[in-house]
Amino acid sequence: MNYPIETQRHSIAHVMAAAIKHLFPEAKFGVGPSIENGFYYDIDIGRPVIPEDLKAIEKEMKRIISKNPAFTREEIAIEEAVKLFQELGQTYKGELLHDLQSKGTTKVSAEEAMDIDPQNVETVTLYKIEDFTDLCRGPHVTEAKEIGAWKLWKIAGAYWRGKAENPQMQRIYGLCFETKDELAAYQNMLKEAEKRDHRKLGAEMDLFTFSPLVGSGLPLFTPKGVAMRQALTDFIWELMQPYGYERVHIPHIAKADLYKVSGHWDKFEDDLFHVSSKKTDEQFVLKPMNCPHHTQIYAAHPRSYRDLPMRLSEVTAVYRDENTGQLQGLTRVRSITQDDAHVFCLPEQVKDEVLNLYRIAEKFYEAFGMRFHRVRLSIRDGSHPEKYLGEDAVWETAEKTLAEVMQSVGQPFEVGEGEAAFYGPKLDFMVKDAIGREWQLATIQLDFNLPERFELEYVDSDGTKKRPVMIHRAILGAVERFLGVMIEHFEGNFPLWLAPVQVAILPVADRHNDFAKELMQELKGYRLRVQTDFSTESVGKKIRNAEKMKIPRMLVVGDREMESGELTIRVHGQQDQMTLTKEAFLTQALEEIEKRLV
Amino acid sequence: MNYPIETQRHSIAHVMAAAIKHLFPEAKFGVGPSIENGFYYDIDIGRPVIPEDLKAIEKEMKRIISKNPAFTREEIAIEEAVKLFQELGQTYKGELLHDLQSKGTTKVSAEEAMDIDPQNVETVTLYKIEDFTDLCRGPHVTEAKEIGAWKLWKIAGAYWRGKAENPQMQRIYGLCFETKDELAAYQNMLKEAEKRDHRKLGAEMDLFTFSPLVGSGLPLFTPKGVAMRQALTDFIWELMQPYGYERVHIPHIAKADLYKVSGHWDKFEDDLFHVSSKKTDEQFVLKPMNCPHHTQIYAAHPRSYRDLPMRLSEVTAVYRDENTGQLQGLTRVRSITQDDAHVFCLPEQVKDEVLNLYRIAEKFYEAFGMRFHRVRLSIRDGSHPEKYLGEDAVWETAEKTLAEVMQSVGQPFEVGEGEAAFYGPKLDFMVKDAIGREWQLATIQLDFNLPERFELEYVDSDGTKKRPVMIHRAILGAVERFLGVMIEHFEGNFPLWLAPVQVAILPVADRHNDFAKELMQELKGYRLRVQTDFSTESVGKKIRNAEKMKIPRMLVVGDREMESGELTIRVHGQQDQMTLTKEAFLTQALEEIEKRLV
Repeated sequence: MNYPIETQRHSIAHVMAAAIKHLFPEAKFGVGPSIENGFYYDIDIGRPVIPEDLKAIEKEMKRIISKNPAFTREEIAIEEAVKLFQELGQTYKGELLHDLQSKGTTKVSAEEAMDIDPQNVETVTLYKIEDFTDLCRGPHVTEAKEIGAWKLWKIAGAYWRGKAENPQMQRIYGLCFETKDELAAYQNMLKEAEKRDHRKLGAEMDLFTFSPLVGSGLPLFTPKGVAMRQALTDFIWELMQPYGYERVHIPHIAKADLYKVSGHWDKFEDDLFHVSSKKTDEQFVLKPMNCPHHTQIYAAHPRSYRDLPMRLSEVTAVYRDENTGQLQGLTRVRSITQDDAHVFCLPEQVKDEVLNLYRIAEKFYEAFGMRFHRVRLSIRDGSHPEKYLGEDAVWETAEKTLAEVMQSVGQPFEVGEGEAAFYGPKLDFMVKDAIGREWQLATIQLDFNLPERFELEYVDSDGTKKRPVMIHRAILGAVERFLGVMIEHFEGNFPLWLAPVQVAILPVADRHNDFAKELMQELKGYRLRVQTDFSTESVGKKIRNAEKMKIPRMLVVGDREMESGELTIRVHGQQDQMTLTKEAFLTQALEEIEKRLV
Repeated sequence: MNYPIETQRHSIAHVMAAAIKHLFPEAKFGVGPSIENGFYYDIDIGRPVIPEDLKAIEKEMKRIISKNPAFTREEIAIEEAVKLFQELGQTYKGELLHDLQSKGTTKVSAEEAMDIDPQNVETVTLYKIEDFTDLCRGPHVTEAKEIGAWKLWKIAGAYWRGKAENPQMQRIYGLCFETKDELAAYQNMLKEAEKRDHRKLGAEMDLFTFSPLVGSGLPLFTPKGVAMRQALTDFIWELMQPYGYERVHIPHIAKADLYKVSGHWDKFEDDLFHVSSKKTDEQFVLKPMNCPHHTQIYAAHPRSYRDLPMRLSEVTAVYRDENTGQLQGLTRVRSITQDDAHVFCLPEQVKDEVLNLYRIAEKFYEAFGMRFHRVRLSIRDGSHPEKYLGEDAVWETAEKTLAEVMQSVGQPFEVGEGEAAFYGPKLDFMVKDAIGREWQLATIQLDFNLPERFELEYVDSDGTKKRPVMIHRAILGAVERFLGVMIEHFEGNFPLWLAPVQVAILPVADRHNDFAKELMQELKGYRLRVQTDFSTESVGKKIRNAEKMKIPRMLVVGDREMESGELTIRVHGQQDQMTLTKEAFLTQALEEIEKRLV
């Protein structure tokens, strides 16, 4: 039988656990779910797992699979299971069983799978291969040979239940795919991704830094990193210009009340940073999103249908807590800069606004050589209209409108029925990076809920008060995450318009330094980001250093250039030099930047 | 005898208390200090104080003073005082005495005076006029007639000890000056200030708003307010261009550790917003300043003397808690945007850097029609060099350097000996606004301390490691406070470069709307902030509305303008119209903006 890949991944995790048990009889097990591309298991063998252990475990797994053992399922009373895992010395499993008995749930953390069926707390199921028994909801393959191509991957530390106050366990990750080819392709991609790791490149190119005193997940951007941030947000702002967006500015905190009204408090309280002071008893929160604040600017004055659409935008930081272990470079941070915008409009204006937003997003991604390789329209579950907020007719029109906009621009899309949030349908835009990874960055989301909760109104042409529709949109999503993705996409070889330093001026000898300095000042006057290498290195070494910093254009400045007034130009990654007048160089460079050529 | 004005102000506060006691025998008293321009007393008469009460109190005060009663001082044992104020039913005074006995302090709040000498907790002093006895450290005038010109001013609510959980009292403010002329001048200024109140004008001109859901002291800026913020910070950035400043970007939170190392934790813990989360036990803080973060960018790489000066700048929000009662419009807020910069340099570079900063600040204030009418150089207390951090020679050079820079630019300054912070000398720059109020906004501060605490280093030309000097500077201080001050300074009649809307286009009739729209688009192409009035009002009413919004230029667009292609221009506040070609209008306007003419 051909089992779903998730089942195969979950089953190989059990095989790994069996192998570990053979090699480390005292091993204690946490949870071991299937994940994207593979699986993991959290284990505790009393010491860190080392690469040699991985080899031994892999060998033992192969031995087990070669015997093609069966996966057998057994249902037992929970009390019996408690006794069994106590005898086996499996204290973590015991804790899960205890929670299941007392709370009817085994919630581990948002990110971790729950291997037990929380619906049925009378009995639990066990799965056994060879001599290894595990507490597990299943399902599994019948025989080990039904598992596809797999490979152990890496070791990481992981706190039990994701809480730093709990014991640290070892998480062993493995890959598992249907075929060997798929596995090999994925391994290649990983190798390529490692080479492009934005944390490594970001440090080498001096784009950002972290400080243990400031804290994890809180990047500090250097001047070069800020140049890139600015290039990105300036570009979006430029693209927004024709469409009547305006800038607003809000504080980074608000009273908890704001999120109680918006409804975010109930859902995300645990993910919020709570703010308190010694001078007031008021409960504040670091804003996890900007929409509630922006509604308050809308609500500051009575609005007429004539005032709409009102398009408020802002580049601003939001804060969301993450478990320290889940933080990663720029792609998973606690301080998140959003280039955010909210449109308040009449229902009949939704179509134009969505079209405009699509145009902005499309042009933006063109500048990275990317197209939307997949677009997903999330709509209601038609059989359960009661689960959604807002009138039936409004929903139908809204869903139809989103589909029509995509059709009108010739953009293919898939429909996800039942995937809409309760407050409105949405469009998600997926792009693929240079090594084939899919990223969901842009989104356009309709919202019938916040206008209701904040009682936003406009006076319509007939004098009646109505609720506006609110549109949330992301173009690049979070600046930090986007930068992280783009550093890896370009491997640091940024197009001229995005490069942190655009031009390196390399004087051949000391006597060319003044000329170089003047040239730098002149180029800076055109808002080019220029750097001059005044070191005492040879020009050959200066070129190698600039190449290493991936600076798109290098201008070698020596006697010849000073005399002729012409520039000798090297393009990053190319061997040949070319000679151009300063004017021609400037014209080319400025056009390339203005058009944001990739 | 001529008593210091503070003594007179404190004494009139006692007279007011005596009058209140006569009129409201049950009144309970909190604290009643002298403050800038006058005095206040916090009282509790079981109901709000109304304007009629003020009149009656003032009348009774005059009666008391006409009898010229003496202020008599008495020292009694603290136990006796406890008994006395208990008998008098003065529970607030009783609480102060209790604190004095148990903690040796009567700290009320940072802002409020303490009327008792905390150094001596064995005895306390009483002051008596007529039949009214008050707990007070003094000193006071001898006779009531020695008090200058005074007037009761206003009533405000104030929580006992500034804490919202405590009973709300009534704070009665009064003015008191040496002479009647001074009092009259101040009253005039108050009347003028009230007319210019930035809270009123800000709401009328739609520059910012507050939301009870977001919280007090947390302004939300509308598009018009953001246009002004941007005009201010863009201008400073432009002025900084010639001097090699670079932009960085930091998160708004940091671990408490950062401030423990910087030393701010010990001093300002109570003024900080504390941040916590449910996912980590780490203690975070909303940054109250940016310098500690910026040191971490400096510290991210080894630095050479060749890399200095390093000039890091950033427009970013800091958060400082305030008692709710002390918040006021934009001038006293909890979310404070700083256009901040920190220079890390060699000691011998301080002079040039300070000079450059002075140049930036000077040019900036010129654009508001302001000069530094007072500059204060704060230096060490020469007789106590041990109270200051850093070597004697470094301090001497630094103080001399600051003085020399002021002399070199012909800027008179006063010297405040003993006024320097322990970490370095500084220059404060004071300006006067249109109604004569003095504001301290710009400052340049040397810092030998943070480089020490964060162990910042550079490798000098001789290969040894040394500490850089850090320069803190503010040009406009806080964007919010500066905006508040400037709204009042200009009474909303902003110069063209700063105005939230620069040009109003006023079509005479509907048939001119398309032409108006095209003109608007064209002007917007020159980055002018333009607004068109498409309402159905008469053009006369449109002009009046634009005048009310204080828009500097109004373009009336009718048949004549459409035919001739020339523009009819009205300047805000002027009756005459003028006719100009579009080109001439644009040239004038853009020049006025570029040169930031007042």
